[in-house]
Amino acid sequence: MSNREEIDTLIEAKWIIPVEPAEIVLNQHAIAIDHGIIKNILPIAEASQRYQPQQTFTLNDHALIPGLVNLHTHAAMTLLRGLADDLPLMEWLNKHIWPAENQYVNAQFVLDGTRLACAEMIKGGITCFNDMYFFPESCAQAAASSGMRAAIGMIVIDFPTTYASDADDYLAKGLELRDKYQHNPLLSFCFAPHAPYTVSDKTFNSILTYAEQLDAAIHIHLHETQDEIRISMESSGVRPIERMQQLGLLSPNLIAVHMVHLTDHEIKLLHQYNCSIAHCPSSNMKLASGFAPISSLVNQGVNVGLGTDGAASNNRLDMFEEMRLAALLAKANSGRADALPAHQVLRMATLNGANALGLGESTGSLTVGKAADIAAIDFSHLNLTPCYDPVSHLIYAASREHVSHVWVNGRILLEDKELTTLNEAELHYRAAMWQERITATSQQLF
Amino acid sequence: MSNREEIDTLIEAKWIIPVEPAEIVLNQHAIAIDHGIIKNILPIAEASQRYQPQQTFTLNDHALIPGLVNLHTHAAMTLLRGLADDLPLMEWLNKHIWPAENQYVNAQFVLDGTRLACAEMIKGGITCFNDMYFFPESCAQAAASSGMRAAIGMIVIDFPTTYASDADDYLAKGLELRDKYQHNPLLSFCFAPHAPYTVSDKTFNSILTYAEQLDAAIHIHLHETQDEIRISMESSGVRPIERMQQLGLLSPNLIAVHMVHLTDHEIKLLHQYNCSIAHCPSSNMKLASGFAPISSLVNQGVNVGLGTDGAASNNRLDMFEEMRLAALLAKANSGRADALPAHQVLRMATLNGANALGLGESTGSLTVGKAADIAAIDFSHLNLTPCYDPVSHLIYAASREHVSHVWVNGRILLEDKELTTLNEAELHYRAAMWQERITATSQQLF
Repeated sequence: MSNREEIDTLIEAKWIIPVEPAEIVLNQHAIAIDHGIIKNILPIAEASQRYQPQQTFTLNDHALIPGLVNLHTHAAMTLLRGLADDLPLMEWLNKHIWPAENQYVNAQFVLDGTRLACAEMIKGGITCFNDMYFFPESCAQAAASSGMRAAIGMIVIDFPTTYASDADDYLAKGLELRDKYQHNPLLSFCFAPHAPYTVSDKTFNSILTYAEQLDAAIHIHLHETQDEIRISMESSGVRPIERMQQLGLLSPNLIAVHMVHLTDHEIKLLHQYNCSIAHCPSSNMKLASGFAPISSLVNQGVNVGLGTDGAASNNRLDMFEEMRLAALLAKANSGRADALPAHQVLRMATLNGANALGLGESTGSLTVGKAADIAAIDFSHLNLTPCYDPVSHLIYAASREHVSHVWVNGRILLEDKELTTLNEAELHYRAAMWQERITATSQQLF
Repeated sequence: MSNREEIDTLIEAKWIIPVEPAEIVLNQHAIAIDHGIIKNILPIAEASQRYQPQQTFTLNDHALIPGLVNLHTHAAMTLLRGLADDLPLMEWLNKHIWPAENQYVNAQFVLDGTRLACAEMIKGGITCFNDMYFFPESCAQAAASSGMRAAIGMIVIDFPTTYASDADDYLAKGLELRDKYQHNPLLSFCFAPHAPYTVSDKTFNSILTYAEQLDAAIHIHLHETQDEIRISMESSGVRPIERMQQLGLLSPNLIAVHMVHLTDHEIKLLHQYNCSIAHCPSSNMKLASGFAPISSLVNQGVNVGLGTDGAASNNRLDMFEEMRLAALLAKANSGRADALPAHQVLRMATLNGANALGLGESTGSLTVGKAADIAAIDFSHLNLTPCYDPVSHLIYAASREHVSHVWVNGRILLEDKELTTLNEAELHYRAAMWQERITATSQQLF
């Protein structure tokens, strides 16, 4: 067999669900990986004839899917997970989350919190996340050390924090960071103006200029609550989306997060400008924001991805939960049990997210030529038995507990449920330290 | 230390969340168990002075909660898990579920399917379930062999199936089964008329007579869909609840499942008659039935428990998922982020379910004198870190993957995530056999 081609890795699996082409399931296929890239997808029997891999994974009970893309998170907020729940929204923000952030958030907090988030996300089959938070350099460091793919938010808010003094300072720091990491193949950078009510027209104009120069995505909270819309009407006379349109921000580069409250006209606008949506069902429900009209958006042809939001408003960075909730909510809201079927939801959680980030050519599906960003799901558990349709099980029956292996760019980050790049004991130690510090002072604070 | 009292079991835990008294968390406490009964709940330090247990469990990172009560399921339908999803409701029922049931369901199917369900439920911290399905003797056998507590449904439908020929036959078979198992301390029996549209007034009258004689609960699907209400209006001129009221079925013995579509007047009626509700959020969403008005029911003082429904319409028998969904849905539907807080949801999933079944004196809370029906949740996982409030984590962050130990009546059914009463290999083997049989013939069938 000397004529077999040498490759780095071969992964053999019971099923491969590539997402592209759509709605297919390959039985007893293998993925051949070389130099981080998917070189071939072919029947196992053929693969063993054709390739001589350095390493072979034989996953007899497993489905391989594209690594999940978490299209909206504030990763470092894992350290505030469950700090204050079941409270009215403004009390939650004003009395708990913002004071806590003001007191504790610094570069070390973001590094420790994001590392913890990366561990949680890798264990849950997530290979790429789109972050928005203070001290993004720490986020970039955490992502790089974990081996995950990440879109780092160059955050901008029109008020001072411990991270930056004003909008220009935020922008300058973000752009400097981008320059520093621009040759890292796993990191990309989005502009991340926080929300219409925290960013001025002047700042939006600066962001737009830079975003067009750099062809970078713009990641923003938009139409999350009725209050946000009311405030916009009072201050600018128009709803936030109309203000974004006037400013020229509606474009294929826009990743609009939440989009709970939308008119039919606004849904059409989003399609017309090829904007992307980051749907965050858990967060929208937990904060009582409402139900985003996902069926209508999808039917209109808008690109919708899924996000977990931060662990303060979810409280888990679990894309399996978001996939299941998205599917169930779309059915309940539309009154149609056939709305948003399983294949479509899986595509939202993978390819649509990648496309929103401008990364669709390198990740989001199991396609020859794309990076090997892959999650393996172990179907041997009793609670996935019997199995008539693995894609149905992925959305309706599986949980992140069933994720066994994860690769990013061909590198294994989770092997038999064990992290390979992050040290769990150290993550526990750092989280316990933050918990102790926050608990000790939270009595005075809140 | 010869004066220490001998007991069977001592479980020491980081936290005990007893549900009764409400909203408390005990730190570093232990539960002393003897002859299946909770004998004492006291600080660990005191417990070791006072008791000499035959067996001690030291659960340093764990919370103990009352075993979860699944207030509505069709356990055997695990064998049809994911057989047909993402279909319009009537197509799903008429073309898939009913033909499959007609062709495959027999005593062996129900035995195998319910055993599989018991395994899944035990692993998810469920200690008691309320079942409605054909061949209930098989369900009783499966529950008994698993060691779970179960309320077996004496199912009644006004049409023939392979199980029974007519309403009288269903009733006779149910009552005979009840007589046979009435001395089993873990089994109780409910009348289970399927739904208003499948049971006649005459049959309801017979059921009511028996239920009053035996003081047994009546478990029925009610107000699940708009179609059901329309059919009732067309055939009887009143909505199903009004028909139930006229028949005399509204009482503390009634467990009304789903209750998605309710007027304010109907909510008041349910409170006035002390009826119980089995809220099944996943099922209601997946089948596009709608959103049950849980905040209104709870605010009105109606006893609401939680159920998974069967694995054909969920597709998991996972009360952690139902707890989280119930909490999130109540917030989104009421527009109040403080609706249905974590403690209240935990009570729904435990004590309220037990009370609905008439079992509130023996289970549903960690209370001296009640049976030791307990689940331990391991908080050492990274995705439950940090932890500021274990009850918040139970509802919003934990999954069934974190359940480590389960006891029913003091007997351990799950130890370090391993089943003690059921054989996993056998369950897999039986499920694979059914899957093969159903897959082989489903092409002709559907």
